[in-house]
Amino acid sequence: MTTILPSYVQGAWWTPADASAAVDVCDASTGEVVTRVSTHGLDLAEALEYARTVGQKSLGELTFHQRAVLLKQMALLLTEHKQELYALSSRTGATRVDSWVDIDGGIGVLFSYSSKGRRELPNARVYVDGPVEPLSKDGSFIARHIYSRLPGVAVQINAFNFPVWGALEKFAPAFLAGVPTLVKPATPSGYLAEAFVRILADSGLLPEGSLQLVSGSVPTLFDDVRLGDLVAFTGSASTAEKLRANDSVQTGGVRFTNETDSINASVLGTDAAVGTPEFDAFVKQVVTEMTVKAGQKCTAIRRVIVPRAAMGDVVAAVQARITERIVLGDPRAAGVTMGPLASTAQRSEVLKQVARLQAAGGKLVVGKTDAPAVLHANGTTAPAPDGAFVEPLLLRFDDASVAAVHEVEAFGPVSSVLGYDTLDEAVALVRRGGGSLVTSIATHDPAVAVALMTGISAFNGRVLVLDRDDARTSTGHGSPVPQLVHGGPGRAGGGEELGGIRAVLHHMQRTAIQGSPEMLTAITGIWHQGATARVGDTHPFRKSLAELVIGDQIVSDSRTVTLEDIETFAQFTGDTFYAHMDEEAAAANPFFPGRVAHGYLLVSWAAGLFVDPAPGPVLANSGLENLRFVTPVSPGDSIRVALTAKQITPRETDEYGEVRWDAVLTNQNDELVASYDVLTLVAKH
Amino acid sequence: MTTILPSYVQGAWWTPADASAAVDVCDASTGEVVTRVSTHGLDLAEALEYARTVGQKSLGELTFHQRAVLLKQMALLLTEHKQELYALSSRTGATRVDSWVDIDGGIGVLFSYSSKGRRELPNARVYVDGPVEPLSKDGSFIARHIYSRLPGVAVQINAFNFPVWGALEKFAPAFLAGVPTLVKPATPSGYLAEAFVRILADSGLLPEGSLQLVSGSVPTLFDDVRLGDLVAFTGSASTAEKLRANDSVQTGGVRFTNETDSINASVLGTDAAVGTPEFDAFVKQVVTEMTVKAGQKCTAIRRVIVPRAAMGDVVAAVQARITERIVLGDPRAAGVTMGPLASTAQRSEVLKQVARLQAAGGKLVVGKTDAPAVLHANGTTAPAPDGAFVEPLLLRFDDASVAAVHEVEAFGPVSSVLGYDTLDEAVALVRRGGGSLVTSIATHDPAVAVALMTGISAFNGRVLVLDRDDARTSTGHGSPVPQLVHGGPGRAGGGEELGGIRAVLHHMQRTAIQGSPEMLTAITGIWHQGATARVGDTHPFRKSLAELVIGDQIVSDSRTVTLEDIETFAQFTGDTFYAHMDEEAAAANPFFPGRVAHGYLLVSWAAGLFVDPAPGPVLANSGLENLRFVTPVSPGDSIRVALTAKQITPRETDEYGEVRWDAVLTNQNDELVASYDVLTLVAKH
Repeated sequence: MTTILPSYVQGAWWTPADASAAVDVCDASTGEVVTRVSTHGLDLAEALEYARTVGQKSLGELTFHQRAVLLKQMALLLTEHKQELYALSSRTGATRVDSWVDIDGGIGVLFSYSSKGRRELPNARVYVDGPVEPLSKDGSFIARHIYSRLPGVAVQINAFNFPVWGALEKFAPAFLAGVPTLVKPATPSGYLAEAFVRILADSGLLPEGSLQLVSGSVPTLFDDVRLGDLVAFTGSASTAEKLRANDSVQTGGVRFTNETDSINASVLGTDAAVGTPEFDAFVKQVVTEMTVKAGQKCTAIRRVIVPRAAMGDVVAAVQARITERIVLGDPRAAGVTMGPLASTAQRSEVLKQVARLQAAGGKLVVGKTDAPAVLHANGTTAPAPDGAFVEPLLLRFDDASVAAVHEVEAFGPVSSVLGYDTLDEAVALVRRGGGSLVTSIATHDPAVAVALMTGISAFNGRVLVLDRDDARTSTGHGSPVPQLVHGGPGRAGGGEELGGIRAVLHHMQRTAIQGSPEMLTAITGIWHQGATARVGDTHPFRKSLAELVIGDQIVSDSRTVTLEDIETFAQFTGDTFYAHMDEEAAAANPFFPGRVAHGYLLVSWAAGLFVDPAPGPVLANSGLENLRFVTPVSPGDSIRVALTAKQITPRETDEYGEVRWDAVLTNQNDELVASYDVLTLVAKH
Repeated sequence: MTTILPSYVQGAWWTPADASAAVDVCDASTGEVVTRVSTHGLDLAEALEYARTVGQKSLGELTFHQRAVLLKQMALLLTEHKQELYALSSRTGATRVDSWVDIDGGIGVLFSYSSKGRRELPNARVYVDGPVEPLSKDGSFIARHIYSRLPGVAVQINAFNFPVWGALEKFAPAFLAGVPTLVKPATPSGYLAEAFVRILADSGLLPEGSLQLVSGSVPTLFDDVRLGDLVAFTGSASTAEKLRANDSVQTGGVRFTNETDSINASVLGTDAAVGTPEFDAFVKQVVTEMTVKAGQKCTAIRRVIVPRAAMGDVVAAVQARITERIVLGDPRAAGVTMGPLASTAQRSEVLKQVARLQAAGGKLVVGKTDAPAVLHANGTTAPAPDGAFVEPLLLRFDDASVAAVHEVEAFGPVSSVLGYDTLDEAVALVRRGGGSLVTSIATHDPAVAVALMTGISAFNGRVLVLDRDDARTSTGHGSPVPQLVHGGPGRAGGGEELGGIRAVLHHMQRTAIQGSPEMLTAITGIWHQGATARVGDTHPFRKSLAELVIGDQIVSDSRTVTLEDIETFAQFTGDTFYAHMDEEAAAANPFFPGRVAHGYLLVSWAAGLFVDPAPGPVLANSGLENLRFVTPVSPGDSIRVALTAKQITPRETDEYGEVRWDAVLTNQNDELVASYDVLTLVAKH
């Protein structure tokens, strides 16, 4: 008897004592039983509470950067174990390419979040959003927005098609935010999720309670979640609807985010006729999206929207490419480029939806719905009665206004071709999808791109413009990438995942904080103008990261600018702009009283005024931000600079870190001349 | 017979032909009928479609800045008509201060959005979010996120307590986003909303279809909205629950945002004993929040959480301040500092909830629930049987764990005092509110502030830290400000309003755009590296805004840096940092091969290389952003700069605008030395 697939809860592996309710999970190509699944008797409420207590505590002890470093270590570990995962993946019907998308794609998400976490987040626990908002004239009352992590657990309910990527793309941002995960994979491919969770759990890399796995159903979930928790769902719109209707979401304050299949479109531009590189790239992409993962992708192209006159050419080109490239079969057989669906249940479901499309007027112009002969693992070609195989199927709708083609999804290797006459009509057709994860448009004409984009962007989470310039390097219509949001309005679920740090923030609460500069400094860990600054005996450039404290300040001597200085600088730099050189012309300028010092002279002098020249912990000036010139400096004016340690960001894996300094230049009347942030690299010790 | 309050739909004023179903709206102090309300026969579906077509079109013709200028003109116009609005406002029970909060507060939101719109948004129709995301090594495939406006209508359902502010705080960001508004005020104070809409409609300032008003109920609303529309609701949690349950929200893709009353808390810190400025500021704030608008504020303090030992002191101080300061009566009577509730129905509701709090263990320690004698408009003091008066009521709960005090809201001048022993306990009490719009904490101890903030921030949309430094300048616990988000998790509705540009973006769809630099340039209106750049005969500094086109470029000659240059610059600026001056020490630095040129030398030289010195359309260098030094420059290296017009932002009300230039410094090996954005002011003609 096949064993039950374990769950990983409260730091231990768990299987039910009573296996009588377990369901079989079968190999997609052969129908063999791979494993069995049951959560009979699992105490979900306890697992969630374990995350909220133990998981929150262990993740709360880490900063964003420390969590980011762990994500990279997990990515490296899973990379080492890739072959194990590939072997299991083929049992789900995945070809080598499909597995690469799922497994390497998932690992890539971990790498990406690790990198972005360290580059784009502070090495702290709170994220500050937007600039300081002054709320009083005297500067004693100011405000900022901060993000702090949700105090609960992120429950992640994944679809069957990407058991690794689908789990990791939700886990990585939750983990980086500091929110523990409880992942619930889909039953047909849950054994692959179990495998990667086991690798991570065995490694000791996971902070206690930061990741739990439930292999099987969670019927009581919505009774057990509460304010502070988040449920992230990927799957069908109908299931999402049922989940969202629960009281804990509707009135209990549980965040619910939702990414569902949508009736995505790809539009061939009016300029992209047969023979253009755009036409070829378009056809290639359509075939890729029909056949990768056997079309079981929430981002696959379901509607191929082309100039009416090009419909025949497109159908012929798709047919030719499928004939040339696609070999349907068991992914373990050499040469197979397209595998079965995930289960025979899925095959029945897909064929049912194809029949609905046909009944609505769709003519099958590529492929047949009969059970196909396929390449078996032993090298023979024959029907596979227990495998979940479906040929790539392309339908043609001569009436593009039929509702079904915009509403019915066959979640397999199935697309429909529609014709349009004008770009407005193409826009209207895209919109009829009711909100999509992605639309792609193939055009080399910027005017066509802008016209389409203006009409469709609000109906899509992502839009890809395909042309000769990016056809080779494009990541493709169907591939969400960690840097970009994945999700879309309406039918696509209305949620957002990925998008770099955006997804981390979806696991946090934004709060406006009002108070004195002193209090905002304490709460954010960033020095605010008006808070206490300390001018000490030691120049702050002589302090290592271990010694430096935000608020450490140097106020320079003042230095007077002469006309000779301005001329010297002009001559040295070559910057003889008239505002510096010609009194009459400068005075005619609306912003200057007469000849003024170069802004770059002021900034260069400021460095001369604040720098401490001898070797020490400050290693380099790496950049400068938010420089604004406010009051012009005339010959005879003098300037001084106050430089204050504003934010300290030690690097986890280097012997130095970033220090951001607040620089304020004032003149002899204490008027603001310029303000900016100086970025430096400073040694830890 | 009193006339029916008109609605403003499809560009015209409308009243029902059949007034039989109209309901009376009464003066809050006297019970006199002010107006009557009915929408019997109003075609809401047509009004919504008018917004989606005519309103979308007229707003779509304007840029963010053009809409922002209109908001300012509306603010100025309403300011002129303030006295009319004040007169009507007193009939709702509002004192002069209450009216100031509502009317001047609402006008202030228009001013704030006008200003932020021009400072923080481009003068364009699409908003770009976040940096460029490179997706291919060769730069041919890149991505960005853009926000484009929702293609529908924003339906704004407001509460009775702030008929002007409540409407304008929703209208301003919708208008700025380019989304037409249909506003539905609450019946008891809808005549004040009608008055300001009439002022705007009569002025001709409103783009056609950009603002409609429905004076009365909208029972079919959720059958009539659809994907692309947004419903923004302020009111009770129970109404919000019913609205949100509609199919158009649950599965139809209608955005629903929700701001409901919450059981907000104010916490007295352990350090803020009697006699401290924090204690005094705390008590003053509690009384303000109980009495302004008669406590009918979704942000009012319902739970006064204080160290257990301080409970008696706090009660006594609140009692003393109310006795000293508060005069209850008709707002038209001189000296009145607190008016009635909005209606006698509200009074009954509030007293019912007070009774629930008492039944749960709350002892009434300040005020009485009996019908009070009040100051009438004629100067006499007597009971007012037809007025909606309630005295300020403070309850004391000796058992702070009672559920009712954290869950039951009496939406009037009612608060409850609770005691805590430890800061953890104070945090736990705040959290029991289940998500709040705002919590304030009175403390002068940063450690207390940080401890409380860490525990409560994720349960609040806003947190105010009150202490001696900001007590005088604080805008107050109960005052949302346009710059900061207003909303909160859980019980507070889970929505977000205001927060500056954040609220504009809530009326837009974020979409990831992938493509070639050329296509992203066309779609965003911002030049992207890799897109076509044009080096012409005319230096781009000689082009006015009318002539300049993004992509206009100058590539400078190259200039070689010598050791002498470095020494000259060091001597001139005083910046003798060892990396520039000491070969051995510089070579020991992990980032430098030996002595290198100052970063500021390079940037100054770059200006000398790209500048065109004679007077012309470029008026000033206003700043610099995102400067990063990448490759150090050694003596003997040479640099050149490419400067490209990246973004052009003409000002609507000045004769010049901003031009952002992309600056790239490279060395003789085409290695990147530094990159940054140069900001300039350039004349329009």
